[in-house]
Amino acid sequence: MIILGVDPGIGRCGWAVVESGKGKLKALSYDCLETEPNSEITKRLLKISLHFESLIKEYKPDVLAIEELFFNTNSKTAFVVGQARGVILLAAASNKIPVAIYTPLQVKMAVTGYGRADKNQIGQMVKVILKLEKIPKMDDTSDALAVAIAHAFSAKMGKLSK
Amino acid sequence: MIILGVDPGIGRCGWAVVESGKGKLKALSYDCLETEPNSEITKRLLKISLHFESLIKEYKPDVLAIEELFFNTNSKTAFVVGQARGVILLAAASNKIPVAIYTPLQVKMAVTGYGRADKNQIGQMVKVILKLEKIPKMDDTSDALAVAIAHAFSAKMGKLSK
Repeated sequence: MIILGVDPGIGRCGWAVVESGKGKLKALSYDCLETEPNSEITKRLLKISLHFESLIKEYKPDVLAIEELFFNTNSKTAFVVGQARGVILLAAASNKIPVAIYTPLQVKMAVTGYGRADKNQIGQMVKVILKLEKIPKMDDTSDALAVAIAHAFSAKMGKLSK
Repeated sequence: MIILGVDPGIGRCGWAVVESGKGKLKALSYDCLETEPNSEITKRLLKISLHFESLIKEYKPDVLAIEELFFNTNSKTAFVVGQARGVILLAAASNKIPVAIYTPLQVKMAVTGYGRADKNQIGQMVKVILKLEKIPKMDDTSDALAVAIAHAFSAKMGKLSK
């Protein structure tokens, strides 16, 4: 199973392609997509959309895993992140890729076993679980890897419980 | 000039195609697109996207006019509306249609001459300005017509001031 994990955002959008199979997880590719803060919102959304369309074409993910937004953020942030999330979910929908949504708590629990883990702990555990050479530079990238891992674990548990 | 006015939303999304030229404004088509509250967010976003792609193909608008969100709303609403707005702006961007953004105050001033106009006053003025037979049933449709009118007026003033 190929999982495309996403930590959506307009300025920085983390993404991760993780392969799950034969009891192993492997990060195929991951990075943080950045858009110019001073460019028009339409250009930024188009850049994000084209990037995800191209990732989907290249890796043909079976699922897109994404975090539910924290609703204790302010409405301006929610609005801006919502726009980025909208175009990413659209890329999944128009390519008929199912979307799995996880709360930040589920992601932290899956990756660190601890619901109040901080960014650094998530980065550390992502590195260990996926046997990366180092912790990803950007938290957004670690978060995208983390939500992909959360999906791999929950999909496995889903199978066991059936 | 053909203007596509939009009042974005997930459940109800107002849209209006208005032609502006020779000192006249004419509403070519307008309605409120609804999506099923219980269907998946990806399906709802896809429906909105396909609808706007099809409107753009049919009417070839010169500009998409849209309201800036009220930031005094709660973050959950902002997030949900943001997702719809994201896919609509993407439809504009991927078809190379410029986007003009107006504040609610600018729209109200343009349509009613009064910054604190209520929904009913906006509906009334939209009906008068565009010579509609009746006030649109949904406020979302009136709001979409209103932002298209605001763009037509401001584009005209822009020309005069040059």
